Amino acid sequence: MNYSIVKYILGWVLRLESICMIFPLVTALIYQESSGVAFLITIAICATLGYLLSMKKPKNTSFRMRDGFATVALSWIILSIMGALPFIISGEIPLFHDALFETISGFTTTGASVVKDVDSLSKCMIFWRSFTHWIGGMGVLVFVLAILPSENRSTGNTMHLMRAESPGPSVGKLVPRIKSTAKILYGIYIAMTILLILLLIIGGMPIFDSLTMALGTAGTGGFSISSAGAGAYAPHLQIILTIFMILFGINFNLYYLLLLKKVKDFLKSEELRFYLGIIFLAIIFITFNIIDQVGDLATALLQSSFQVGSIITTTGYATTDFNLWPQFSKMILLLLMFVGACAGSTGGGFKVPRLVILIKSSFIHLRSFVHPRSVKVVKLDDKIVDKDTISSVSAYLVIYLVIMIVSVIIISFDKFDFLSNFSAVNATFNNIGPALGEAGPMSSYANFSVLSKLTLSFDMLAGRLELIPMLLLFSPSVWKRQKSSKHNV
Amino acid sequence: MNYSIVKYILGWVLRLESICMIFPLVTALIYQESSGVAFLITIAICATLGYLLSMKKPKNTSFRMRDGFATVALSWIILSIMGALPFIISGEIPLFHDALFETISGFTTTGASVVKDVDSLSKCMIFWRSFTHWIGGMGVLVFVLAILPSENRSTGNTMHLMRAESPGPSVGKLVPRIKSTAKILYGIYIAMTILLILLLIIGGMPIFDSLTMALGTAGTGGFSISSAGAGAYAPHLQIILTIFMILFGINFNLYYLLLLKKVKDFLKSEELRFYLGIIFLAIIFITFNIIDQVGDLATALLQSSFQVGSIITTTGYATTDFNLWPQFSKMILLLLMFVGACAGSTGGGFKVPRLVILIKSSFIHLRSFVHPRSVKVVKLDDKIVDKDTISSVSAYLVIYLVIMIVSVIIISFDKFDFLSNFSAVNATFNNIGPALGEAGPMSSYANFSVLSKLTLSFDMLAGRLELIPMLLLFSPSVWKRQKSSKHNV
Repeated sequence: MNYSIVKYILGWVLRLESICMIFPLVTALIYQESSGVAFLITIAICATLGYLLSMKKPKNTSFRMRDGFATVALSWIILSIMGALPFIISGEIPLFHDALFETISGFTTTGASVVKDVDSLSKCMIFWRSFTHWIGGMGVLVFVLAILPSENRSTGNTMHLMRAESPGPSVGKLVPRIKSTAKILYGIYIAMTILLILLLIIGGMPIFDSLTMALGTAGTGGFSISSAGAGAYAPHLQIILTIFMILFGINFNLYYLLLLKKVKDFLKSEELRFYLGIIFLAIIFITFNIIDQVGDLATALLQSSFQVGSIITTTGYATTDFNLWPQFSKMILLLLMFVGACAGSTGGGFKVPRLVILIKSSFIHLRSFVHPRSVKVVKLDDKIVDKDTISSVSAYLVIYLVIMIVSVIIISFDKFDFLSNFSAVNATFNNIGPALGEAGPMSSYANFSVLSKLTLSFDMLAGRLELIPMLLLFSPSVWKRQKSSKHNV
Repeated sequence: MNYSIVKYILGWVLRLESICMIFPLVTALIYQESSGVAFLITIAICATLGYLLSMKKPKNTSFRMRDGFATVALSWIILSIMGALPFIISGEIPLFHDALFETISGFTTTGASVVKDVDSLSKCMIFWRSFTHWIGGMGVLVFVLAILPSENRSTGNTMHLMRAESPGPSVGKLVPRIKSTAKILYGIYIAMTILLILLLIIGGMPIFDSLTMALGTAGTGGFSISSAGAGAYAPHLQIILTIFMILFGINFNLYYLLLLKKVKDFLKSEELRFYLGIIFLAIIFITFNIIDQVGDLATALLQSSFQVGSIITTTGYATTDFNLWPQFSKMILLLLMFVGACAGSTGGGFKVPRLVILIKSSFIHLRSFVHPRSVKVVKLDDKIVDKDTISSVSAYLVIYLVIMIVSVIIISFDKFDFLSNFSAVNATFNNIGPALGEAGPMSSYANFSVLSKLTLSFDMLAGRLELIPMLLLFSPSVWKRQKSSKHNV
């Protein structure tokens, strides 16, 4: 590993975090909350550390793919540890592992909380939680790439960072330069977030709620900002949130197509069609399954679409306690937890394009028994998916299942029921937030043991960074000091 | 489809079944049970139908792979329908869907039962249930191949039948001729079963129990023959059963190696090592997890090894109600349900070699991030696994997961809890038998709805025949009449 460049990048990440914390600090000033001091202290620590680490520009700026991946994993861990400090210093979440869980849950856009009573948190802490969603949604390194002085970044290297942090089976560079790609992505992200904030304010939502709910929606995070949950807002606000949750689950590359006025290409995207198709079907199924329970069609449709949009995009807001829904609807939700959103969106999960690739290649396998001489090629958007991508998606599925199974087994020491354990792992690993059973939407992860919380924290990071970066941290080869500056794979 | 050859094969399958039913008929005579009449009637029906169907030797004996697969699926369905008749005629399991469930459960070596009180069944019915396990364990078509007059079977064609019925990612022909391979397999099978019967009798088990328990063990079936379960036998008998369950879960090709005195090759088999390694670890984990509950180490070890051996080989006997074990041990068992036994054994499940191939290829995928230039080849027993096998195993995993998820969703209409639904699908799809929760080892599948029972019946067949044959029945192309006799793919 090229330690000097890693240090340099980590320094910039910390600098960025100290700047981000100015927002909750301002919130504390507005609401005159004493907890603001915790942010002041943390900003000082982050800024100092960040300055020290990134003071010296490294001479050798080359790094390998594995280093890029490990750097991203380390960045997220350091970001989370520092981000947890305000909770601990203020005493609002006093225990380290709890505060760390909450912060990782924030940055990974999970929204799983250990706070039993959200109303007990101060406004600045609530703002910080929601803001971590927004930062984590598009990615920290993507932001660093967008702002870093570019002269000492070669495209080949920074691509590793981008690839490790961006969700999906393949990374689409929108434009040849990574820096410009990062800027475009953040531009779309900021514009859509501001639009949502304005719509919510116009719709009559209080300004603080509009800001925090919009940040959580944009990042597909889902921390609830009051014990009443999203169900307390008027139906038209719930509809706005539903639409925007679904919008933020769409591949941002597609929005870039819209900016380029390639509307036809946008509409032709198979990923988009599958994504919307799954949402549509799930809404229909659940609506008819819960209609007896909730009374009328309109309410059933409102509740079903909000919850479906929230779960498939891995946001995790809830307008109702879906724990009380019939078993069938709960199974549909559990299935949506796996599916996840589109690649290149702020959502988590297994991701729609991976699913499409796997299902198509299995179908072709099946067809080969009927027509042994048929052409065996998987196509996505009329383009042939190469065999390496298919086998890497298959490997992804296996690693994904292994991590999930091991996690469920570890969590099972806690003696909760199977649905609680299984869905808790699912809801954290896929960055959703609320699970079924013990950690349902109207409950929290507070009662899980320390071991379980650490396991779930790992799962949240592994899920958000798509497995590989976190696993590479366990490889001794990654930690070996890089010898030759020219060795650059 | 070449209907004349399909009819001919189905005829032979029915002839075979009528002969098999002589055994329960004899049992009825010995115990002077009036239910024996039901077998007499069924034998008459099967023999007549079988004779009519196989009366005319087809001129055109060629058939395609897809026809072979569909024939196997049809054979199993007809076998099960006929096999269910004695239960219905005698009135011991009066409802058609229940009797069908029970018979499919028998032939597929699942051992899931809808009978609430086994002691209410007559001896001849208990014998028939256990005997279906034994027939289904090695395969019906394998048997037909072993006895069919060989002059009108070309190797290429019959291979399709063998391939569809034999478990595992690839079929090992032991000797060039299919017929001889089938004979060798059945020879080993019969010899091992007789050895087990003798050992049980010498060990002091009543003769009827020895026979039926041995048939269920050999086929890795697991129907319990009394409400007391296998826990009623003395510890040394439980140990004999444990050892033989594990033996019948081993690839029979490896036993052939032993017969050829290739002991080194036998011991070097990676599949065997993984299989025994998983069993060893699971026993250790569970022993220490349940020791507080059962009191002493010896009992814990006895219970843990019996249950582990029973579940991983997908037999499904139980000496204790593992539903009452701690959550951690239950999760280990649930995991073993997935794993399954070796390929080419009588056991079901996902199968160890598939697991090994998937884990190895995922590990290679992971390693490629650390060492991008490393060789990317999966080896099993020092032989390179070709890419087609890897991708077909991946496709198998995806189809397997899709069937499982859809089944769980259908079962969830029944309003049992998630663990019950999830493990019931698991226990039937992987041909194990007892699940966790509602259909636990001391309970039955009686309370599931008709829709659920039909779904689980489909899962049992799909699991035993390894997905493809059952799925091909849904393809319209398979049902098209074959035109050219020379078209033979």
